[in-house]
Amino acid sequence: MNKETGMESWELLARIVETGDATLIESYLDGLSPNETARAISRISPEDQNRLFALLDPEEAAGVLREIPDAQAADVMEELPADTAAAILSAARSDDQADLVAELGDEEAEAIIDRMAPARAAGLRKLLTYPPDTAGGIMITEFLAYRDSLLGRDLVDDLETHRDEYADISVQYMYVVDKDEKLKGVLRMRDLVFPPKTKPISETMITDPMSVEVDQTLHELELFFERHALLGVPVVDSNGCLLGVVRRSDVEEAVAKRSQRQFLSFSGIVGGEEFRSMPLLSRAGRRLSWLSINIVLNIIAASVIAMYQDTLAAVIALAVFLPMISDMSGCSGNQAVAVSMRELSIGLVRPNEVLRVFGKEIAVGILNGIVLGALLGGVAILWKGNAYLGLVVGVALAANTIVAVSLGGLLPLVLKRMKLDPALVSGPVLTTVTDMCGFFIVLSLATVLLGRLTG
Amino acid sequence: MNKETGMESWELLARIVETGDATLIESYLDGLSPNETARAISRISPEDQNRLFALLDPEEAAGVLREIPDAQAADVMEELPADTAAAILSAARSDDQADLVAELGDEEAEAIIDRMAPARAAGLRKLLTYPPDTAGGIMITEFLAYRDSLLGRDLVDDLETHRDEYADISVQYMYVVDKDEKLKGVLRMRDLVFPPKTKPISETMITDPMSVEVDQTLHELELFFERHALLGVPVVDSNGCLLGVVRRSDVEEAVAKRSQRQFLSFSGIVGGEEFRSMPLLSRAGRRLSWLSINIVLNIIAASVIAMYQDTLAAVIALAVFLPMISDMSGCSGNQAVAVSMRELSIGLVRPNEVLRVFGKEIAVGILNGIVLGALLGGVAILWKGNAYLGLVVGVALAANTIVAVSLGGLLPLVLKRMKLDPALVSGPVLTTVTDMCGFFIVLSLATVLLGRLTG
Repeated sequence: MNKETGMESWELLARIVETGDATLIESYLDGLSPNETARAISRISPEDQNRLFALLDPEEAAGVLREIPDAQAADVMEELPADTAAAILSAARSDDQADLVAELGDEEAEAIIDRMAPARAAGLRKLLTYPPDTAGGIMITEFLAYRDSLLGRDLVDDLETHRDEYADISVQYMYVVDKDEKLKGVLRMRDLVFPPKTKPISETMITDPMSVEVDQTLHELELFFERHALLGVPVVDSNGCLLGVVRRSDVEEAVAKRSQRQFLSFSGIVGGEEFRSMPLLSRAGRRLSWLSINIVLNIIAASVIAMYQDTLAAVIALAVFLPMISDMSGCSGNQAVAVSMRELSIGLVRPNEVLRVFGKEIAVGILNGIVLGALLGGVAILWKGNAYLGLVVGVALAANTIVAVSLGGLLPLVLKRMKLDPALVSGPVLTTVTDMCGFFIVLSLATVLLGRLTG
Repeated sequence: MNKETGMESWELLARIVETGDATLIESYLDGLSPNETARAISRISPEDQNRLFALLDPEEAAGVLREIPDAQAADVMEELPADTAAAILSAARSDDQADLVAELGDEEAEAIIDRMAPARAAGLRKLLTYPPDTAGGIMITEFLAYRDSLLGRDLVDDLETHRDEYADISVQYMYVVDKDEKLKGVLRMRDLVFPPKTKPISETMITDPMSVEVDQTLHELELFFERHALLGVPVVDSNGCLLGVVRRSDVEEAVAKRSQRQFLSFSGIVGGEEFRSMPLLSRAGRRLSWLSINIVLNIIAASVIAMYQDTLAAVIALAVFLPMISDMSGCSGNQAVAVSMRELSIGLVRPNEVLRVFGKEIAVGILNGIVLGALLGGVAILWKGNAYLGLVVGVALAANTIVAVSLGGLLPLVLKRMKLDPALVSGPVLTTVTDMCGFFIVLSLATVLLGRLTG
């Protein structure tokens, strides 16, 4: 909130947009942090959003869109006239272009790309053919490349002549290619501090430069930058031709995005980001798609209880313990899921090391199962004064904790081998299996000991 | 696994350590990726770990420790003789030193720091006084700073003379200070491509350089690097004196660590990382500390059921639906928690915007509550042929979904304002409240309609 006027940033932004003064809008947005920009834009009306982006020049508009989350930027783009959207997209950096288009609907994306200049459209279409979590999907295509025969002096001249033009390009490295565009070497800015001016740059460059292939995965890129203290690496095709550059910061951004997606899937937000500025029906519908799978799984699990209605009718106190056994097994199992997901993500465990994880988890399950079972059994005895009730409830919780902890530890490994997303699938599978198992143990034990429980 | 020998990397490492040949160990570890290094070291015996780090020279050992997670590295350090540990710690980079010491026990840390050279120990102790998630806690103290009166030629000479020594220091920027160590300017490597050699560097440098204060928070640093395309920023104290440099990559690393901690807390792994190479009792105990809070909360929630035993005895079918209502409300509520946490983290919502979030969430809660309630009510009617049972179950699930979704949306905001960790506290509070509320709604409704349900 603005302390002087008492107005929220979006109220002020809406007023400024109404003036139609592009310079005023630019200088106001320049003063906001990226978070505040995202907030202000998400809160003004769709009409004001349209007006705002139509008023700004495309370069400036692309800069503003870069500061807000991709899903939100795509929502804004879809509302704009296709020509305006195409101009803004053309002004964006290559990797931002690809990220934005990935969030657009297919039809909207086509309509916008069709209106871009043919060369840019072709470049973007080419970029879009690479899967998002690969070097091709992460790289930028803005870089400096020079022929190997160029003289050192001419390179320095070129840099000085195009100083302004190159200002937007990150020139930590310059790449050297042969006549077939094959990558031959790399020059660092520091190599130009004392350049041999009258020799071809092929004599100054670092030869045999490191590079990655266009189809290498995000995980491989992470490992590459872990091992090499570089700011960027050239991307080549299978012939060794230079296609683009993957920067360290782009890899870090992609990793951060992946862990956000993981956190959201883990909590049942599926199909990408949800922001509260999105339409109600789409928010409710996407959440419901996940909930409806869960309710079916819940009904299946509860059917175990339905088979033991006579036992329940005889010992009604059991009904009090069923939800607790279900919830506690979920908690114990989820801890093991989290440790496995973390160990998998940093490579401390491999998906095929099922036995090792089982051994490590069952030990924790037995220890914690005994403690929790004794605790709940004790509460049952104190409450009803029946040692057998305590025995049934305690043994059931102990046994089910062992099941939940070992299953929770193994699930992410097994799902990973089945190419399923552990963040998405572990939770529902764990809950369903441990519910069924827990209900079965407590109710079948109670059925066997029915005489003692009702005596 | 090594394809030729069929041996796992740690089996090979253990054998190589037994040879006692430091060069062999170094070249073997150099060939492993950081993930594989962490894995191999975590799997060899504590004795072999000791032998390994005692054999390597401290520089090399510090490099290896850098590649494995801090918690694991600290475990290794604690097992080493304090002199060896001190030598390794001295060889590590300043920010790694601070991260490592933060994971050590207080006594172990003291014993190791006491054995470092006095100047280094003092530097490290100074670094440790800064809170971890601030500029002081994240900065490195290895940087190049020159007096403003130095001539351009002398600076270039210094760089050439110390080329090897400076190789480890990231020299994207050099800093210029006055006689009181006050930050006066910044030089980029590219400014040295055409340096005015006979003039003092104060004439070439960028004056009024950007800087951050030593107590700025991680969040403020994130915003700083979002706004400014810089690789690093100098850190100054309240007098403007240069203390260190925060690099973009360090901020990204700190943010990634924070989101890992968040994911683990969210799943009930509290008090830092858990790896399966840690001792069983400490793993089980830490998980149990979280589970025992949950079981108490569960007992409190279940006490609501205990108050309605007569109703349950009369309509035993209700016992089948209790765990489902508990579980489904947890699912719906957690979705809202995740959206709030995500919106809070990117600043789309502020902790005081309770009304906005409530309005947005209650709408989703009503829609999804009606759909889920109708579904579960329908199942109840199909199963027992009693429309009133369907009504009770359906209305209870609908009402409790509304409660869970609005509460889930609000909890992270409220907890944030109370300075509690939403990732840690949201889950248990949400489950307990929605369980109590759900059990109460279904059982009190059933009590009112008891005649119709048993008829």
